[in-house]
Amino acid sequence: MTDTKKAVVLLSGGIDSTTVLAIAKSEGYTCYAMSFDYGQRHKSELEAANVIAQIMEAETHIIQKLDLRIIGGSALISETEVPKDRSESEMSDSIPVTYVPARNTIFLSHALGWAEVLNANDIFIGVNALDYSGYPDCRPEYIKAFERMANLATRAGVEGQHLNIRTPLIELTKAQIIQKGLELGVDYNMTRSCYDPDSAGLACGHCDSCQLRRKGFHEAGVPDPTLYKENGDDDG
Amino acid sequence: MTDTKKAVVLLSGGIDSTTVLAIAKSEGYTCYAMSFDYGQRHKSELEAANVIAQIMEAETHIIQKLDLRIIGGSALISETEVPKDRSESEMSDSIPVTYVPARNTIFLSHALGWAEVLNANDIFIGVNALDYSGYPDCRPEYIKAFERMANLATRAGVEGQHLNIRTPLIELTKAQIIQKGLELGVDYNMTRSCYDPDSAGLACGHCDSCQLRRKGFHEAGVPDPTLYKENGDDDG
Repeated sequence: MTDTKKAVVLLSGGIDSTTVLAIAKSEGYTCYAMSFDYGQRHKSELEAANVIAQIMEAETHIIQKLDLRIIGGSALISETEVPKDRSESEMSDSIPVTYVPARNTIFLSHALGWAEVLNANDIFIGVNALDYSGYPDCRPEYIKAFERMANLATRAGVEGQHLNIRTPLIELTKAQIIQKGLELGVDYNMTRSCYDPDSAGLACGHCDSCQLRRKGFHEAGVPDPTLYKENGDDDG
Repeated sequence: MTDTKKAVVLLSGGIDSTTVLAIAKSEGYTCYAMSFDYGQRHKSELEAANVIAQIMEAETHIIQKLDLRIIGGSALISETEVPKDRSESEMSDSIPVTYVPARNTIFLSHALGWAEVLNANDIFIGVNALDYSGYPDCRPEYIKAFERMANLATRAGVEGQHLNIRTPLIELTKAQIIQKGLELGVDYNMTRSCYDPDSAGLACGHCDSCQLRRKGFHEAGVPDPTLYKENGDDDG
């Protein structure tokens, strides 16, 4: 039988997935955290995920290795320059070069396999339809379609159980996400967002992800604990 | 723009996927073959896939490494014994221990990412609803749900194109698949089916996959080119 209180939580080490882990824990789930070493240029997020999983008492934390560089197609896994200082309309108008083809589908598929092994009925993912930065696989209709497919793909579907893709952040702004996490005691100092950190792991402050992070803390009215590479230009 | 004549073809090195590659080629597609090194005990299928991709002139052949042993859950990726000499009713009644959780979903997701990078509108997979050996992710309703999700997941969906999951074998018996492949000039001597080959790569002759293969050649009325470990008990 499926244990309804087990959940697989996709954990990138950023603000969103860390908040999702806190939410899943607050709902009483035993959390199985899953990260991916997919050839990303910002590996420091994996170290962050490891620390977060330990401090927030995930039952287990696994890092699935899958080198997506073999298929290419994204600035996040290549030497292509990560865009900097884009305006909000530039971010929302088109799919950016940092989009990794089918990434959420790949991550959710691996999570689905693990959920099936664990007999977990819930997979939590920190996708966000508002600050989604133009990625097609962050939209609610995509998540619903994945859930439907997942219930046909697995033993659970055959045996009449239901697997849920849980997206507690999908309608929140970055500021609301941060407020929610702070209520639940999240220490955002542990999290990493930057797509293009330097070799010491310092955030660039200018990529889409840094900009959304800064704006989030600003709008939430709380100090941004992030160490940025340059100090002269805070709060974009 | 998407080139409608490019296809990603999932190629395991067995009868089904090799036949699918022949079908895709016969329809005029430039074929991008994709295999997975997922920690399977039957690695000899990857060498077979490599040879098949070359002989059948795939444009490229990539082997995506992803070690599914980290999540476990299947006899195909563990030391659990592979079941032998099961009857047809045993094979179709329940999901066997050789089922790898969410495997087709994981494979199709990686293929989806590659298709997006290549601007390919078609992904071919050799699933089969008749000889499906009890796997939930071989059913037509599952494939339709994956296709629907895929069109919401990617740039293609956003840009109004359509991605197709092509399953030309889904309603064929193993014998019909073999007949189709022979018509298209497939040399099945190159293919590997066994879940539990010995160290020299010889097929066991008794796992579900060997049994379906033997039955297929028998019913197609053509000699089975496979070298089995034991010779005394052919045609199960």
